[in-house]
Amino acid sequence: MGAGFPDSEYKGRLKAAQTRMADAGLGAILLTTEPDIRYFTGFLTRFWESPSRPWFLVVPANGDPVAVIPSIGAALMSKTWISDIRTWSAPEPADDGVTLLATTLRELVTDGKVGVPSGPESHLRMPLTDFERVKSAAGLTFTDDRGIVATLRMVKSPAEIDKIAAICAVAGRAFARVGEIAREGVPLSTVFRDFQRLLLDEGADWVPYLAGGAGQGGYGDVISPASDTALAPGDVLMLDTGAVLDGYFCDFDRNFAVTRASQTARDAHARLIEATQAGLDVARVGARASDLWRAMADIVGGGESAGRLGHGLGMQLTEGLSLTARDHTILHEGMVITLEPGIETGKGKLMVHEENIVIRADGPRLLSPLAGPDIPVI
Amino acid sequence: MGAGFPDSEYKGRLKAAQTRMADAGLGAILLTTEPDIRYFTGFLTRFWESPSRPWFLVVPANGDPVAVIPSIGAALMSKTWISDIRTWSAPEPADDGVTLLATTLRELVTDGKVGVPSGPESHLRMPLTDFERVKSAAGLTFTDDRGIVATLRMVKSPAEIDKIAAICAVAGRAFARVGEIAREGVPLSTVFRDFQRLLLDEGADWVPYLAGGAGQGGYGDVISPASDTALAPGDVLMLDTGAVLDGYFCDFDRNFAVTRASQTARDAHARLIEATQAGLDVARVGARASDLWRAMADIVGGGESAGRLGHGLGMQLTEGLSLTARDHTILHEGMVITLEPGIETGKGKLMVHEENIVIRADGPRLLSPLAGPDIPVI
Repeated sequence: MGAGFPDSEYKGRLKAAQTRMADAGLGAILLTTEPDIRYFTGFLTRFWESPSRPWFLVVPANGDPVAVIPSIGAALMSKTWISDIRTWSAPEPADDGVTLLATTLRELVTDGKVGVPSGPESHLRMPLTDFERVKSAAGLTFTDDRGIVATLRMVKSPAEIDKIAAICAVAGRAFARVGEIAREGVPLSTVFRDFQRLLLDEGADWVPYLAGGAGQGGYGDVISPASDTALAPGDVLMLDTGAVLDGYFCDFDRNFAVTRASQTARDAHARLIEATQAGLDVARVGARASDLWRAMADIVGGGESAGRLGHGLGMQLTEGLSLTARDHTILHEGMVITLEPGIETGKGKLMVHEENIVIRADGPRLLSPLAGPDIPVI
Repeated sequence: MGAGFPDSEYKGRLKAAQTRMADAGLGAILLTTEPDIRYFTGFLTRFWESPSRPWFLVVPANGDPVAVIPSIGAALMSKTWISDIRTWSAPEPADDGVTLLATTLRELVTDGKVGVPSGPESHLRMPLTDFERVKSAAGLTFTDDRGIVATLRMVKSPAEIDKIAAICAVAGRAFARVGEIAREGVPLSTVFRDFQRLLLDEGADWVPYLAGGAGQGGYGDVISPASDTALAPGDVLMLDTGAVLDGYFCDFDRNFAVTRASQTARDAHARLIEATQAGLDVARVGARASDLWRAMADIVGGGESAGRLGHGLGMQLTEGLSLTARDHTILHEGMVITLEPGIETGKGKLMVHEENIVIRADGPRLLSPLAGPDIPVI
């Protein structure tokens, strides 16, 4: 499949940003992270795994974005719709793009401040020392971007939703094959490796995220790497993946009972699906993130301590809103979110279920294949 | 395999850092990124893929590090040697660990400044707005960490070298099987998927990085995602992987000729191996990074424009020194680096070869299986 979108998609994103920038009095927005730069350019590469070089995109108040990047990225960036590409030979610690970026900002910003994403989930992907150099060399005023980029990214276009739906289908097919790789006696670490192989086999480009757990009546946490402990009869096995296709993520999990399902596992799984359904029932345009949290928390219990029961999804594994008691973000058509209820099944043990949905005018549409109440036995 | 190291490894790292902190007058070092926090704790999880929560580790001038992290990470952090673990329910945009971190810093820093990694390859993994809040709430002076953490990480311990050697062996076995998955007529995107499956099959925990290219007499660049174009007779196929085992990377590539090897490909490959050998010949304790660059650049040509011909390697795909004309870092025993000569094979076309080595007192030791001068035909 060809990555990226038609130029019109990026031009629409640019126009939407520039309209908000005008209202906020921003002369430009400076972007430094992979998803933010890709959002406006379509620049897709795994090379971001290397921390050695900073990358910059300047979104001016008027006109097209300007890429200020290491020369090693020029060939790939020139395949995008971006025409103004300025490069330097990186890494060059003495002046790693600092002068080139400052000069570019001075040229493009005639009025207003330079906005830099500074809010929740953001970070500045460049050395702090160099950022200070850029600020003084540019002689401009820097401020936050008023959350403009994060707000735009929260609502997905039909083309983006198609990409997320495609990777959800890939993961759905891989989960349907877990019985081929996981059974009593297989070490969890082997299950993790083989499940990643299944995801690739079903068409994922790569697998940035895989977590999970296994244990009697639940698992201890959901972020630990796999141990070499073999699956035992009665264990609950959970696999939670963030696989990628064309740069867009899925993020959902599945639970399985090994050899036999304990009553605890059966009850907890049915409860989790019930909570997911309750979340679906209120996942409507106009509802608040906290409303979905409440609907699910009322069923899985735990109150405030239930924590985050879902989140936005797209170019990153998690992005945008959080389904918590405190997040009152209003749901809009085109938002893609996860419903992720968790339930305590014993002391220090839990079970988590997760599905991916998109908010449509007429209600939610499932992107992941909704699991039934009965926990599958493998 | 069990991830991590004995506590003595981490205590040694802490002692080395605190000795340098005393000389630099630092009352603490504040860490926010995955490799820096893992370096002092052994905290290993793929959960960093989610940008929604900041994570902090405070390394005080005296005493053990203190983890200030989201409660979702408490169970896993408690499995490390870190005993002082302070948590909050994240994400909480109104106060996402800001107060807890500021309070912790005020308690631990009785004298001196707070050092934050701010130099080459570093970034601050937290929202800029929250960093400003922490600084004012802590009422302390913040500065860079004088490169202390990066400098320590540049020299690997025997235990770290063993882990890098293990993942290099995994990738070596996978490269030896490329003939099983790549041949004339197979789309490059399929080769990329299947090679990641081979890496997992041979024992990689996951595959954070895979790049490559294919074309007649070379490829256009080395960071693009795979196209669906089928391999053609006479193509040169290059696969470059950063796979991970126990949290440590390998980073080397291999070139293959599809069906038949063109004279251009044969000559370029032999030249690349010659350059690699020239780099090996000068890769001795006391040599400078720029000496290795010069030895290889003299053979592949291109002079300054030859760019970076290798780099440090370890907890990240690339870290530490760069083999460039400008980097005069002195090689020390225990440094793990890549030798990565590239050669122009035509207009806009190149070929790159890469090996991984460790600097020993008696000379370099290869961690990747050194390729021969003849490009293998598949």
